[in-house]
Amino acid sequence: MQGGEDDVSYVNNSDRQALAITLSKPILISSLQTIKLFSTNSPIRITDLGCAAGSNTFTTVDTVVETLRRRYTAVYGGGSLPEIEAFFSDLPSNDFNLLFKLLTEKRRVDSPAKYFAGGVPGSFYDRLFPRGTIHVAVSLSALHWLSQYMQSDHDLENFLKCRKEEIVNGGVLFVLMGGRPSGSCSQFGDQGTRAKHPFTITMEQAWQDLLDEGLIDEETRDGFNIPAYMRSPEEVAAGIDRISGFKIEKMEYMKVVEHSDEKKEEWKKDPVSYGRARTNVVQAAIRPMVEAYLGPDLSDKLFKRYENRVSTNREFLHKTCFYGIVVFSAIRI
Amino acid sequence: MQGGEDDVSYVNNSDRQALAITLSKPILISSLQTIKLFSTNSPIRITDLGCAAGSNTFTTVDTVVETLRRRYTAVYGGGSLPEIEAFFSDLPSNDFNLLFKLLTEKRRVDSPAKYFAGGVPGSFYDRLFPRGTIHVAVSLSALHWLSQYMQSDHDLENFLKCRKEEIVNGGVLFVLMGGRPSGSCSQFGDQGTRAKHPFTITMEQAWQDLLDEGLIDEETRDGFNIPAYMRSPEEVAAGIDRISGFKIEKMEYMKVVEHSDEKKEEWKKDPVSYGRARTNVVQAAIRPMVEAYLGPDLSDKLFKRYENRVSTNREFLHKTCFYGIVVFSAIRI
Repeated sequence: MQGGEDDVSYVNNSDRQALAITLSKPILISSLQTIKLFSTNSPIRITDLGCAAGSNTFTTVDTVVETLRRRYTAVYGGGSLPEIEAFFSDLPSNDFNLLFKLLTEKRRVDSPAKYFAGGVPGSFYDRLFPRGTIHVAVSLSALHWLSQYMQSDHDLENFLKCRKEEIVNGGVLFVLMGGRPSGSCSQFGDQGTRAKHPFTITMEQAWQDLLDEGLIDEETRDGFNIPAYMRSPEEVAAGIDRISGFKIEKMEYMKVVEHSDEKKEEWKKDPVSYGRARTNVVQAAIRPMVEAYLGPDLSDKLFKRYENRVSTNREFLHKTCFYGIVVFSAIRI
Repeated sequence: MQGGEDDVSYVNNSDRQALAITLSKPILISSLQTIKLFSTNSPIRITDLGCAAGSNTFTTVDTVVETLRRRYTAVYGGGSLPEIEAFFSDLPSNDFNLLFKLLTEKRRVDSPAKYFAGGVPGSFYDRLFPRGTIHVAVSLSALHWLSQYMQSDHDLENFLKCRKEEIVNGGVLFVLMGGRPSGSCSQFGDQGTRAKHPFTITMEQAWQDLLDEGLIDEETRDGFNIPAYMRSPEEVAAGIDRISGFKIEKMEYMKVVEHSDEKKEEWKKDPVSYGRARTNVVQAAIRPMVEAYLGPDLSDKLFKRYENRVSTNREFLHKTCFYGIVVFSAIRI
């Protein structure tokens, strides 16, 4: 994700993630309300895998902490709450300085702090914690990002194998990721389905613009692939089945609307702002990858072409665009 | 500490810390070699409190990990080493992005990683970890920095109270801090002792330069105090005694020479470089505090005056300057 706090940063472009998190929250809470409570003798360890650094970063950990505190208080009374430790994990390139700044600001408001907190740099396709030390692991809007293009099953299995080692028996794994509906074909084999989202077409057109202007060659255009894969619920369930050690409590495909009706009406009056806002969202997600591939100058040009095309294509604001997510909650058995 | 990787950053100005750490290492190793080994059933948790972000950041944790691994291998054989988790902790303003970048580079060399690692932002005068979860806590060249000017005993007691909660029975607390020899008077009451270090005098002269040039007034000059206190071994021992819960294994005052003879000969030929190097060391330590007080422009001027005075005062390179450290190792009882 793009660090910092300017217009193209993740911290200022994470509204739709917030909506997806809100939609899936009941599944997480329901899991936490049915599990057997952990011992009060040792601390509870929670981790958010792929936490990024933005306004959503603390939302889900806060939900977990509040739900568990309420259950422990109901069962044991207020005096014997176990202490809680939360680990925010993402790639080492994540802006942890910003994350810790936001955490410090949050603590000034929340005082006294409800949990101890740390940051863990690393890939969630590797082990991040010692064996059997995590009670609740959550991952939001992150697991559709692959370690390499086309490695979907391999990556999902590595993720699950590592979590199987790290999560204690009875612990919870809650994942929300970009996804496809049940019964749809594999994303890689199905160019038609992939192309359906109008913003995907627009991004392809922006690449074509650079080619038409002689700024890049065909090989450069075709060599860039966003290493993301939208899994179907069946693909996720099959992965969990192959790795074993988890019992699926709930698995759902959901559609998240891209923009509210109010926002759309506002933007219809100001398509240039719309183009800019939309481009900022895309840059927040993929700018670091594009820049590593094209360098900063050509990346600026690519996103400028994209912005122009979005600003001048009124069709977008007259359609209701959705993106899909797959959400599951599983218990370590 | 000053973040980043430029000339005035901590990462490029931490040689004398390295020397102090080398001198005190035998005390740490000897403690680790005599403690009762922790259970192999759960992971061992180590923390470095006030870790900064530089070439020294990993040195001491690496020493702890290597020493423990050797002991466990000798007793249990290679197969049943407990997993190790290391937490690098410092104020939220520390450059954790740089720390995690250095950690990732180090891991590329050390592969496979010998421990899981995380960063914990916060003040070591507060609780940073759940109760009874830390096996070895180290703090290097950090505990002489006070939370506020003149709070020496209060800060030492808070530090010890928090560590008493966090460290398991039988665990180790190892601290190296700036210090004074046994039997010397309190730093606060004794302007003479404080003024003895020639670089302290020079810094006072640089402040006076700003005053003489009409850039600051007397109140501004006198209002700045570096919130640091050099404790004597007796003061540290008395603090440990008041808080209880720790048995001192070893407590020593040591003198660390500022510069090697080779370095001094080199600098005698090039006093301008010497002035710059010396100023970089001072900036790495106190620039953020000075800048918070004076703003960036006046801070530049202050350090420039300091640099000029050091470059033109040949006396420094013809003396052997020392700074003092107090080192102790204690066991949680």
